[in-house]
Amino acid sequence: MQNVDEDTITQIVLARHANAANPRLKQIITSVVQYLHGFARDIQLSEEEWFQGIQFLTEVGHITDDKRQEFILLSDTLGLSMLVTALNNRKPRGCTESTVFGPFFVEGAPVYENGADVGNGAKGEQCFVTGRVTGLHGEPVPDARVDVWQADSDGFYDVQYEDTERAYGRGTLRTLPDGTFNFRSITAESYPIPHDGPVGRMLTALGRHPWRPAHLHFMIDAPGYERLITHVFRSGDEYLDSDAVFGVRSSLIANWERHKAGTAPDGTVLDGPFGTLDFTFVLNRIDPGSGRIK
Amino acid sequence: MQNVDEDTITQIVLARHANAANPRLKQIITSVVQYLHGFARDIQLSEEEWFQGIQFLTEVGHITDDKRQEFILLSDTLGLSMLVTALNNRKPRGCTESTVFGPFFVEGAPVYENGADVGNGAKGEQCFVTGRVTGLHGEPVPDARVDVWQADSDGFYDVQYEDTERAYGRGTLRTLPDGTFNFRSITAESYPIPHDGPVGRMLTALGRHPWRPAHLHFMIDAPGYERLITHVFRSGDEYLDSDAVFGVRSSLIANWERHKAGTAPDGTVLDGPFGTLDFTFVLNRIDPGSGRIK
Repeated sequence: MQNVDEDTITQIVLARHANAANPRLKQIITSVVQYLHGFARDIQLSEEEWFQGIQFLTEVGHITDDKRQEFILLSDTLGLSMLVTALNNRKPRGCTESTVFGPFFVEGAPVYENGADVGNGAKGEQCFVTGRVTGLHGEPVPDARVDVWQADSDGFYDVQYEDTERAYGRGTLRTLPDGTFNFRSITAESYPIPHDGPVGRMLTALGRHPWRPAHLHFMIDAPGYERLITHVFRSGDEYLDSDAVFGVRSSLIANWERHKAGTAPDGTVLDGPFGTLDFTFVLNRIDPGSGRIK
Repeated sequence: MQNVDEDTITQIVLARHANAANPRLKQIITSVVQYLHGFARDIQLSEEEWFQGIQFLTEVGHITDDKRQEFILLSDTLGLSMLVTALNNRKPRGCTESTVFGPFFVEGAPVYENGADVGNGAKGEQCFVTGRVTGLHGEPVPDARVDVWQADSDGFYDVQYEDTERAYGRGTLRTLPDGTFNFRSITAESYPIPHDGPVGRMLTALGRHPWRPAHLHFMIDAPGYERLITHVFRSGDEYLDSDAVFGVRSSLIANWERHKAGTAPDGTVLDGPFGTLDFTFVLNRIDPGSGRIK
């Protein structure tokens, strides 16, 4: 007869999974149980605290819907998302580092030609972005698929607006034969993650702010190379050292140059100041011998 | 400049909580982050697995409502609930052990006199329960509040039925001056926990069944004693060694005696077989000097 007590329970739970058919699932559940029980023992979790945890997770579940993913926010704000990104994207020195994907990517963004206005009417100061996609030895990567997405100057992504289906600050381009791409959009600004829900209350209770430093999201795919998911951050941003989701890597910070009103890089004449950004993305080649497909 | 990578991230997240005002919350979040990150490193969690975890928790959140608490089921089936129960209810040898509370207790159950039919029409074979509440040295505890609740022979608690507000298999009694109580109900049967949701699918994937061995729930309160939340299990049940929620402690297993049709303990004549159960509950005195109130 099993006699479950605080000393025996972990081994009793683990033994119950002896017949799990999937060895990876068995490995994962074994680790989940060990670390979950380890946590409860470490802090001698009280019954009241356990119930507060149940209620917190219930609220996280109930605010999550097709447009809002509070569990991802929770993972992001506890540093789990960035840890998983780092664990899964080890690369040779010299390759562009990865950072968190975030919850605001949308499949099926508009396809643009180089030079187009990806902003598509988004609020914000105009910004002209030039980029270059290369391999580790500087070789240009032509016809790479470049997805870019960003918030507007009010700190919202297009999908966060209820009243429009329009995609702005979001698009897909292809690199030219020399590996370059260029588009017009708006200057990224720092913004708070959604903080009117349980994760926001958690941050407040922990003495933290919900702000992310200004950034552009990029996802770059090219045959023979590992997919790159990253941001380009804006130097000088006040939140670079306290990103709410721990996504900042110093190699991803770039100068956004600001210019007076006048002729923009695309030849148009602007009556207000505008920005320019240039960044080179270095992809990691998939080793043909390793069979590693990412 | 912080440079977040797989080696630095845990310390960077922990440092972010330097200003948390509540020291217990700071202790808890520190442990959460360490164990959560430890888990991800231990199994080198892939991005795909991370996302499957997000989706699983989202489903757990979405099936949870006022009548169904899938997060508690998840905690129960991972052994966390029983661990927390054990950590928080250490008692001198000789006191009745605690087990999981479960999700089916309801405030405001009907109040019954001793001898009443707590079953109140629930499906099942009639059962006559006698009990005795004492302190560690055998002293009777009069006027203790005894809450009892149980499933019917179909394996459902009253609150799981959509079509009735009637409380059956659930009630509150008081012990008599000699510390005893008695009531009529139905014989407890083994039953599966709700398994048509994500937790049920998890159990299937892990090669586990969802069954709990037959039991009666008791919660007993008396001034000067610690609250006791426990079950009495039915000896011989086929699931005693594989309770889906790990609640079985050998000291809580009792003989349910089965009798042929005839005169029942309350003098009524029954035309079918019936059961009897007798159990003694030993409460732990609150040390007046410790100020410990549970």
